[in-house]
Amino acid sequence: MTKKTTIYDIAKKLNITAATVSRALNNNPKISEKTKELVFKTASGMNYEQNKLAQALKSGKSFNVGVIVPRIDSNFFSSVIRGIEEELYPEGYHVIICQTHDQQELEIKNINSLLNAQVDGILMSISNAKLEKNAVFNNLVKKNVPLIFFDRKKDIKNVSSITIDDFKGGYEATSHLIQQGCKRIAHLSNNRNLEIFKNRYLGYKQALLDNNIPFDESLVVETFSKVIEGREKTRLLLQMDNPPDAIFSSSDFSALGAIEEIKESGLRIPEDICVVGFSNEPFTKFMELSISSIDQSPMEMGKITARMFLDEVASEVKVKLEKHVVLTPTLIARKSSLKI
Amino acid sequence: MTKKTTIYDIAKKLNITAATVSRALNNNPKISEKTKELVFKTASGMNYEQNKLAQALKSGKSFNVGVIVPRIDSNFFSSVIRGIEEELYPEGYHVIICQTHDQQELEIKNINSLLNAQVDGILMSISNAKLEKNAVFNNLVKKNVPLIFFDRKKDIKNVSSITIDDFKGGYEATSHLIQQGCKRIAHLSNNRNLEIFKNRYLGYKQALLDNNIPFDESLVVETFSKVIEGREKTRLLLQMDNPPDAIFSSSDFSALGAIEEIKESGLRIPEDICVVGFSNEPFTKFMELSISSIDQSPMEMGKITARMFLDEVASEVKVKLEKHVVLTPTLIARKSSLKI
Repeated sequence: MTKKTTIYDIAKKLNITAATVSRALNNNPKISEKTKELVFKTASGMNYEQNKLAQALKSGKSFNVGVIVPRIDSNFFSSVIRGIEEELYPEGYHVIICQTHDQQELEIKNINSLLNAQVDGILMSISNAKLEKNAVFNNLVKKNVPLIFFDRKKDIKNVSSITIDDFKGGYEATSHLIQQGCKRIAHLSNNRNLEIFKNRYLGYKQALLDNNIPFDESLVVETFSKVIEGREKTRLLLQMDNPPDAIFSSSDFSALGAIEEIKESGLRIPEDICVVGFSNEPFTKFMELSISSIDQSPMEMGKITARMFLDEVASEVKVKLEKHVVLTPTLIARKSSLKI
Repeated sequence: MTKKTTIYDIAKKLNITAATVSRALNNNPKISEKTKELVFKTASGMNYEQNKLAQALKSGKSFNVGVIVPRIDSNFFSSVIRGIEEELYPEGYHVIICQTHDQQELEIKNINSLLNAQVDGILMSISNAKLEKNAVFNNLVKKNVPLIFFDRKKDIKNVSSITIDDFKGGYEATSHLIQQGCKRIAHLSNNRNLEIFKNRYLGYKQALLDNNIPFDESLVVETFSKVIEGREKTRLLLQMDNPPDAIFSSSDFSALGAIEEIKESGLRIPEDICVVGFSNEPFTKFMELSISSIDQSPMEMGKITARMFLDEVASEVKVKLEKHVVLTPTLIARKSSLKI
């Protein structure tokens, strides 16, 4: 790349200050017409392109909004992003996306890159990282860059969030399995340092309790949201002396792995083992043995996230209002768990 | 948002030029230690945060690379992005992503937003738009912002590209169906203003010709890469007086729609109709009736795209070298087309 012409280069050539060049290019009335003409002519001759970014540095507005998600190859997150775009585009904002792959280091890099790209706000779902890292978020708040969490949040002062009622999701999924006659329900959980997975687990536990089914710790296994992980953890569950008759998975991907493993073992779904996933990924519907799941209204979540951001930037009030919206999930019962 | 402190504010406060402030903040040896100390102290007192972007404006480097894709909710594109990330992260680059939803207007906005975000290069797969819009790409070339096309390209002077041999993909898929005994092979094509779809279509046509099967224009229907589109177009094909005994779809999503429609009509797959898709999306493997498809090595495509970018920025040569890499696709035959 060739070096870009800057206002400093123009200032040097004309022997005036960079501030004067900048004011001239921005048509500031304090600068004489003669100087303006000279600056424009010189800038043009030097192939200078007035940079909107440089203007953004001054006005504090780029009309770019950054969205950070753990992964883009999940229908849940891509649908949230679609909802955000649909709400922000008509308002003149543009959406740029980064993914963290659940790595804390990448999450911090994402935030810094978006800040350097002068975004007007960051809408994000935090990564699986276990470590404390409120500093990076507090820094955003301090810088007055609007930050809104969706789905996966941290409790940070002055930061609004929109989540779904994951406890209710876990409770509904487990209650449904109990209604189908299941008595030994395993749970493919995930990193419970994240509220979403903790709450799905607590909902599962409460449903057992409310139905007088003893809670068995050995039936709960931490499983990342991947097909291969679902397979491996299910293999271990099936090898138990007293194996489960149902699996409630905190992810559709691990539910799919569970189904593959159960089929391979020769057991029947749903007759021998019922399976319920979480997120209502499109493939759960596509499968011949369609997979029961919990729908999280991702498009709606995206739209609300975007509206929260718009409210924040529109607000003239210096004191930040912290809002927390919680959506109610819906159980979609399909072949993988419908015995009756 | 509160207005950010700029170097102009600091310069005004200290009654020195903005250039001096900038040099001091960048630890330029031409500036005295005394001035540096004064600038740092004042900047700190005014809550000034040195902006990497502002530095980027001067150095011409932001270490952000923009990636533009038609959609992120396709495993093909998300895998290409993963390949790009894996290759660029170790080199200190960060990847920011935009999607066009196949809308030309959004594509141009994406490019401008990324330019305003001062990306060091743009790696993109162009949208389905039919209109001419070389101007926006030529503008990038003129601005010396490295531009590389992957998968969906335009022929622009000085712009490198990496594609797969779509003609071969279409040829292999169709030849496979002929080997399975199919004689009346329909093609769910897509917008053939895009080379990828045009070449898949031409490969299909050539395979028929080479096997002495007459080409029937009425068996080729334009179908967007969506499940619902695949269903609707297949419904029309099945209503023909002389319906097809095989469908080669230019997309796995429309192939899935075709399969749903065929099943609903009571016909059997592969006995009555064989189906082959394109892209090897993960769901094609997950299905109980697994779907035959063409694998495009998306991770590899992403890695090569990234390496082309790195070569371009590393190059000291002012004359641009145009490179065109073509990958060979692989047929993955599965249940949906294996009669024999």
